[in-house]
Amino acid sequence: MNKIGVYPGSFDPLTYGHLDIIERGSKLFDQLYIVLSVNSSKKTMFSIDERRNMLERVTKDLDNVNILVCDTLIADFAKELGATALLRGIRAITDFEYELQMAATNRKINPDIDTVCMMTKAEYSYFSSSMVKEIARYKGDISIFVPQFIKELVFEKMHKDQ
Amino acid sequence: MNKIGVYPGSFDPLTYGHLDIIERGSKLFDQLYIVLSVNSSKKTMFSIDERRNMLERVTKDLDNVNILVCDTLIADFAKELGATALLRGIRAITDFEYELQMAATNRKINPDIDTVCMMTKAEYSYFSSSMVKEIARYKGDISIFVPQFIKELVFEKMHKDQ
Amino acid sequence: MNKIGVYPGSFDPLTYGHLDIIERGSKLFDQLYIVLSVNSSKKTMFSIDERRNMLERVTKDLDNVNILVCDTLIADFAKELGATALLRGIRAITDFEYELQMAATNRKINPDIDTVCMMTKAEYSYFSSSMVKEIARYKGDISIFVPQFIKELVFEKMHKDQ
Amino acid sequence: MNKIGVYPGSFDPLTYGHLDIIERGSKLFDQLYIVLSVNSSKKTMFSIDERRNMLERVTKDLDNVNILVCDTLIADFAKELGATALLRGIRAITDFEYELQMAATNRKINPDIDTVCMMTKAEYSYFSSSMVKEIARYKGDISIFVPQFIKELVFEKMHKDQ
Amino acid sequence: MNKIGVYPGSFDPLTYGHLDIIERGSKLFDQLYIVLSVNSSKKTMFSIDERRNMLERVTKDLDNVNILVCDTLIADFAKELGATALLRGIRAITDFEYELQMAATNRKINPDIDTVCMMTKAEYSYFSSSMVKEIARYKGDISIFVPQFIKELVFEKMHKDQ
Amino acid sequence: MNKIGVYPGSFDPLTYGHLDIIERGSKLFDQLYIVLSVNSSKKTMFSIDERRNMLERVTKDLDNVNILVCDTLIADFAKELGATALLRGIRAITDFEYELQMAATNRKINPDIDTVCMMTKAEYSYFSSSMVKEIARYKGDISIFVPQFIKELVFEKMHKDQ
Repeated sequence: MNKIGVYPGSFDPLTYGHLDIIERGSKLFDQLYIVLSVNSSKKTMFSIDERRNMLERVTKDLDNVNILVCDTLIADFAKELGATALLRGIRAITDFEYELQMAATNRKINPDIDTVCMMTKAEYSYFSSSMVKEIARYKGDISIFVPQFIKELVFEKMHKDQ
Repeated sequence: MNKIGVYPGSFDPLTYGHLDIIERGSKLFDQLYIVLSVNSSKKTMFSIDERRNMLERVTKDLDNVNILVCDTLIADFAKELGATALLRGIRAITDFEYELQMAATNRKINPDIDTVCMMTKAEYSYFSSSMVKEIARYKGDISIFVPQFIKELVFEKMHKDQ
Repeated sequence: MNKIGVYPGSFDPLTYGHLDIIERGSKLFDQLYIVLSVNSSKKTMFSIDERRNMLERVTKDLDNVNILVCDTLIADFAKELGATALLRGIRAITDFEYELQMAATNRKINPDIDTVCMMTKAEYSYFSSSMVKEIARYKGDISIFVPQFIKELVFEKMHKDQ
Repeated sequence: MNKIGVYPGSFDPLTYGHLDIIERGSKLFDQLYIVLSVNSSKKTMFSIDERRNMLERVTKDLDNVNILVCDTLIADFAKELGATALLRGIRAITDFEYELQMAATNRKINPDIDTVCMMTKAEYSYFSSSMVKEIARYKGDISIFVPQFIKELVFEKMHKDQ
Repeated sequence: MNKIGVYPGSFDPLTYGHLDIIERGSKLFDQLYIVLSVNSSKKTMFSIDERRNMLERVTKDLDNVNILVCDTLIADFAKELGATALLRGIRAITDFEYELQMAATNRKINPDIDTVCMMTKAEYSYFSSSMVKEIARYKGDISIFVPQFIKELVFEKMHKDQ
Repeated sequence: MNKIGVYPGSFDPLTYGHLDIIERGSKLFDQLYIVLSVNSSKKTMFSIDERRNMLERVTKDLDNVNILVCDTLIADFAKELGATALLRGIRAITDFEYELQMAATNRKINPDIDTVCMMTKAEYSYFSSSMVKEIARYKGDISIFVPQFIKELVFEKMHKDQ
């Protein structure tokens, strides 16, 4: 039976830390869906379309990876996809506690969907989308955190906002 | 390509917490190997053979699960098996830090083998082999932590030692 | 001397996790006051009156439990009530650090009032008011987290807001 | 109904941190039992009798505090005493995780006995029996950690062992 | 070679916890710069000028301490100052994880600038600027957390806002 | 005034993680003493002399670094050396809690000696002497964790023991 994974996130913007999980996840599952959640209550720097474009560009060589957008509960969405498990990256303790709660909640909502976690590689353990935006705000160099085209998009966006 | 998982542990003795990870892991992978490590520096209550028997008995209805014994580094052993990933159960923060270190170490030793973690279900989150032995030492009831036949083996072993 | 406990919180809305602490707390103390803090800086889904009604409804069979509203420092309010201790539920590490700080602060402000903590039962360890609201936002089923009448109030409130 | 607390520990030796919990616990409960566990697998510096004597000496002015010795499971022992709750002091995160597991285990073994925790005061947060023994081993001054008579007992014991 | 330290923060307002780190940091370095970050996205109670005045007043007797204001990345600012290291105070686990991420990020941005941490003294471990504001909001006594003149400034500011 | 640092440890054996702290510490202080504690209660793989030799070999190009052996309390030893501060490397949360306790204890014993911590670089965050010995026990490759000559000493020692 095909093993289907679902990797949910907001990717605002995508970092090399996310990309690491995507690449490793694409080896764990026969099919990996990256799922962008439409969460109207959370203000993002990039629109859903912009973020989908970023994800499609960095995953174009990964044949078993597809990008989807979801506006319902991720546990319900994953069930409809026939998913084996949700995939999550964990960097640190505070991540871990949140993921533990999310995994338990999702299992309650939908007992057929499990959650598996991959530890972020040590060299990416401090990468986060919010850190990228914080550094860019002060015009610092973010090229170690994100691919070149995303770096340009972030600066363009910040410039446009001024 | 077949997805092969390796679930290492000492299982001294196996608890319902381990069994939960085994059952969920058997759905994540096409083939799951449970690997008992021969670690001469750690004193165990049950011999390798006794622990293998326990594992074989509780997994006899899981067709894609097999028990193996290993006396080398688990990362090297997993590579020989053609494993996709090591599987680990995480109960709590202290587990998490140790697993984070182990995952990083195993990745350094063998970059082809990843580690995936499953969160122990909330109701098993405080189950551990050492807690089982601690309670049994005071003749407390361990039937909520382990299957009936293991309960009998633990008490028999403790009795035999006296 | 009567042992008086004070259980402060915002209960926006009350979950089965809160109810578990209330029931266990009512056995620890001769008299337990549940105290709703009026905190103008924090936006809530339910008004103080709505939350008091919820609490009164779920505690109507607990003779030694009463609901109070407070607009001063909880440590000062507890002293006026002649409280023996503040009662807090702890679910996880992040909770713990916050509670440790609050307990130390309250002890400094009012050395006569101690703080006692009860660990949330494993099966409720991932329940939180914000998780309930998050799931309800996506029209997920929250009936495992809150009593039926609160489930209806949450959906009514979300509907009314639309 | 009388509120009865049980404070278990090994007190090898008692520190000002333990004494702080004892004094605060004696205000929370109508009757507080300090329970010394006979745990044959753990090597202690002081015998059960020596530790009971220490505890009796420091609690002689606390009318509602008594010292007991127990050689069964603490959850069973507490039930026989008609206890309302077990009392535990928590200093730090690592303590917290262990206590969370113990509380869940004890609740499973005996659902009638709850566990309540008090946070160790900030100034005692780094006090531990093992730290006291470590410092004494190097002939450091332990008078800030333990009462004078215990300081003398520790040095006498260390001297006797040489 | 002179050892130059940089202690960044928002100090909104300064507490005795900050002052403790400043005094201890002034002994570790030949020259210590306290750096106020101009972070337009974060709403503060006190203006940059008000916070600089507070810092200058409490450090007027520390000859090797100076106050600076910075509107770029702190890692870049520290390099321009020829700094040996950034200085940070750590109170608790959640602080620690954030500091770990910041230290790794700053090292990536500027490999010449290291980060050193001092543990906040136990008696100040629960002091925070936000706790001070929270207590003041309820008209509680904050004189144990901040110097008398800052206490007055906080109450004046809260009054002025009403 | 000269800034003197003291970096205590058991270095059994030294890893690249220790070496990283030593090199960074040598820039923070005018003079850095690495102090090997003679702790008779802890069984080590290498003798004091063997460990001193390792440390001397890897630090021979660092002019302001010296190796010392101490058989008293490190806080007392540091005072005799006129130390400004103890230096400690922190890798993870569990390290952090222990270091927090040690820093508080050392400050109580000797208020003139402070403790400063450096965060281990992300790529060394999972390196530990015990992990090195564990891997070597299974004849795994430890050359990523320790310098070549230490790798040979570890295997020689393990071989000699057989």
